[in-house]
Amino acid sequence: MQEITQYLESNRDRYLDELFEFLRIPSVSTDPDRKDDVVRAAEFVADQLRLAGIDKVEIVPTDGHPIVYGEKIQDPSKPTALVYGHYDVQPVDPIELWESGPFEPTIRDGHLYARGSADDKGQVFIHFKSAEAYHKLGKPLPVNLKYLIEGEEEIGSPHLERFIRDRQADLKADTVMISDTAMFARGVPSICCGLRGLAYFQIDVQGPSGDLHSGSFGGPVGNPAFELARILAALKDDRGRVTVPGFYDDVRELTEQEQQEFASLPFDPEEFMKETGVKALNGEQGYTPLEQFWSRPTLEVNGLLSGFTGEGAKTVLPAKAMAKVSTRLVPDQDYRKIARQVSDYARSLAPDWVDVQVSYLHGGKPWVANLDHPALKAASRAVKRGFGKRPVFQREGGTIPIVATFDELLGVPTVLMGIGLPDENAHAPNERLLLEHFYAGIQSAAYFLEEFSEA
Amino acid sequence: MQEITQYLESNRDRYLDELFEFLRIPSVSTDPDRKDDVVRAAEFVADQLRLAGIDKVEIVPTDGHPIVYGEKIQDPSKPTALVYGHYDVQPVDPIELWESGPFEPTIRDGHLYARGSADDKGQVFIHFKSAEAYHKLGKPLPVNLKYLIEGEEEIGSPHLERFIRDRQADLKADTVMISDTAMFARGVPSICCGLRGLAYFQIDVQGPSGDLHSGSFGGPVGNPAFELARILAALKDDRGRVTVPGFYDDVRELTEQEQQEFASLPFDPEEFMKETGVKALNGEQGYTPLEQFWSRPTLEVNGLLSGFTGEGAKTVLPAKAMAKVSTRLVPDQDYRKIARQVSDYARSLAPDWVDVQVSYLHGGKPWVANLDHPALKAASRAVKRGFGKRPVFQREGGTIPIVATFDELLGVPTVLMGIGLPDENAHAPNERLLLEHFYAGIQSAAYFLEEFSEA
Repeated sequence: MQEITQYLESNRDRYLDELFEFLRIPSVSTDPDRKDDVVRAAEFVADQLRLAGIDKVEIVPTDGHPIVYGEKIQDPSKPTALVYGHYDVQPVDPIELWESGPFEPTIRDGHLYARGSADDKGQVFIHFKSAEAYHKLGKPLPVNLKYLIEGEEEIGSPHLERFIRDRQADLKADTVMISDTAMFARGVPSICCGLRGLAYFQIDVQGPSGDLHSGSFGGPVGNPAFELARILAALKDDRGRVTVPGFYDDVRELTEQEQQEFASLPFDPEEFMKETGVKALNGEQGYTPLEQFWSRPTLEVNGLLSGFTGEGAKTVLPAKAMAKVSTRLVPDQDYRKIARQVSDYARSLAPDWVDVQVSYLHGGKPWVANLDHPALKAASRAVKRGFGKRPVFQREGGTIPIVATFDELLGVPTVLMGIGLPDENAHAPNERLLLEHFYAGIQSAAYFLEEFSEA
Repeated sequence: MQEITQYLESNRDRYLDELFEFLRIPSVSTDPDRKDDVVRAAEFVADQLRLAGIDKVEIVPTDGHPIVYGEKIQDPSKPTALVYGHYDVQPVDPIELWESGPFEPTIRDGHLYARGSADDKGQVFIHFKSAEAYHKLGKPLPVNLKYLIEGEEEIGSPHLERFIRDRQADLKADTVMISDTAMFARGVPSICCGLRGLAYFQIDVQGPSGDLHSGSFGGPVGNPAFELARILAALKDDRGRVTVPGFYDDVRELTEQEQQEFASLPFDPEEFMKETGVKALNGEQGYTPLEQFWSRPTLEVNGLLSGFTGEGAKTVLPAKAMAKVSTRLVPDQDYRKIARQVSDYARSLAPDWVDVQVSYLHGGKPWVANLDHPALKAASRAVKRGFGKRPVFQREGGTIPIVATFDELLGVPTVLMGIGLPDENAHAPNERLLLEHFYAGIQSAAYFLEEFSEA
């Protein structure tokens, strides 16, 4: 194993060069103009797998962006890990807030800045390099490896479930390994053992058939921007609770033990406010911030657009107004049921004089891990060796819908061994990855292959 | 006079060519990139005045866009009319909704489509042609004429008051003639005898210092888009009344006679709903639509912007959210007092966890005319001759702040002889002007010179 770790150490510069190349590809899956770039990113992943000695590599077309699949069966008697990750990235807007180009990887103060550096190119990359080290040194892999790297994670993985169902036999594995989450804090290596689900909506309010002069028409002609504001404002009450009828019906409350575990983790509200730049904390009354992030459902407004938004003043009565709204869900909420509830309730708030349309865009299931599973224990030992420190078991407020899908379709437990950080702007300008964690992550990924073989 | 009317008739094609040239200049005063185009429009106006034989024409620079001033003193013993208008236009967004380019004048079904066709290039243009006819035919003007054509009306005329104060002696006149309003309906020529005032604001809500992942931060980190929605929703109640404390304190109620006059005008709610494309009428309870438009103050949301507004889904917790909001005011509301009230109230609605800034962008005073003034009576006779039908006296829901300024600074009554129509999209895509009214307007403008000389 020492040979492996030394190899990983001495190849750092090359890894960085290759990751830079990966990050330069603007594989924004939500943008139809980037379709070719998304394909280029898939090809890059396939090349990386070939470089790592994965002997069966396919780029599988879907009705959307392709899925890259690879496998190397070293010894059928050994356990098998299926590495999942994604090569697509979030949009870059607002582009003007980036300090360096989103697709021009740049190192500043030990951080690698680029769209996709943390989510997920920089993270999935560590699992290419762990295998590659064994291959380059001519050593057999301690476990069997399969790779499933998709290009539609940021748009809700619309074609992945179909692929998994079609290839259920190929995908047989003992664990799914995913690095796509954030550690609890810098220098606090973490295994994530819970995720929230998601239901994402667009609300469109239509007033008059065209924009009108607000002075000549305002009043008798209802204002869709105002009505949208009224609908949004009615979706949460003064105590931070979502008002959608039935929304909390299936929420599993934390056990006393879970509450104590959450409370034992270091969370400094002052530090958190400084990091995020807010003057005071908000949220659902009666729950700590960590409880809110990890175990409580929320509703957020993700975007607003209506009428005149330029410099200065334009006295327009807008024809329409749009909001992007998402809910985060916890066990045992069902995102399909929540989607219906939110949609019905938002529409019920619409007055006669406007049309309100609620479009459900995508969703994902919430998930919690089984802490006693050998794969989770192996990952815990691997992270301890890679980072030199025992990992904490935390949850994540975000959503990786595929985790629940693996659970359901393959019956395989997932290990979330993320090396990102909460302040790395995964979905915002100036996304970054701490290089020190990237290198420790590569080591951990290699240790995992060894630890898991003994599990 | 017959010679004049025949001349006006036979020059229609040339008038249209010249107006097209005027409309092709994208003189959007709110857009700093259009500064040169705005100057070009000023030069076009100056050329038009020279063509009309106005012998003193100046382009007066200001700290913003220039003011075009011209005068011809035919006979100091005759009355003097000061023609006011503006050569700047509204922005064109949303550009994708225009059926032909906003600066490519196009005639369809008897309407001239272009930004500025109705507001105000096409309307001010009729007063160039009335004077030109006298000049070309070698006839003395029946009255003295002065012209004050500005380039900042759409941004609140920030430099006009200064100009009027500086040139008070030059601007001495017996009436101010403005064509910048809409007629009551097609074929219903109108004189406008009341305008609402305006106070326009931008509300900026700042949450975290940068955009964050909504799943990882939402809840404890307050959402500025949601808080903005909550603030906006709180600005009006369920009966359509503005909730800003003190907002209605100075509102002058209609007299019974005014109520009866309003009620005597033809207003068909079904027709109005069809025209505007709304399914039901909204607004302040207890007032008819015309009462609301002309005699009741309102508050409208003119624009919204926050977070992700593209195609698809992005789970961002936005750092900031912005709304454009404007109030329309009636006698005797003071726009400065209202600006303070709205600003104080909106800020008072902000919770601890966001910063709310309310910027007052611009405003204007409400106004009502004296129906017994000779200039108004002359205009009424002129319109009757030009359109072949006695005009109705109506009010306008919009704002021409300069009318109140002329009243206050020059003590001169204004005549609002508009030839636009309410559905001509003055501030919206596909702005247009009915050509039949344009030609009748040119005749009316010429008749006015004669009628006013006898007043």
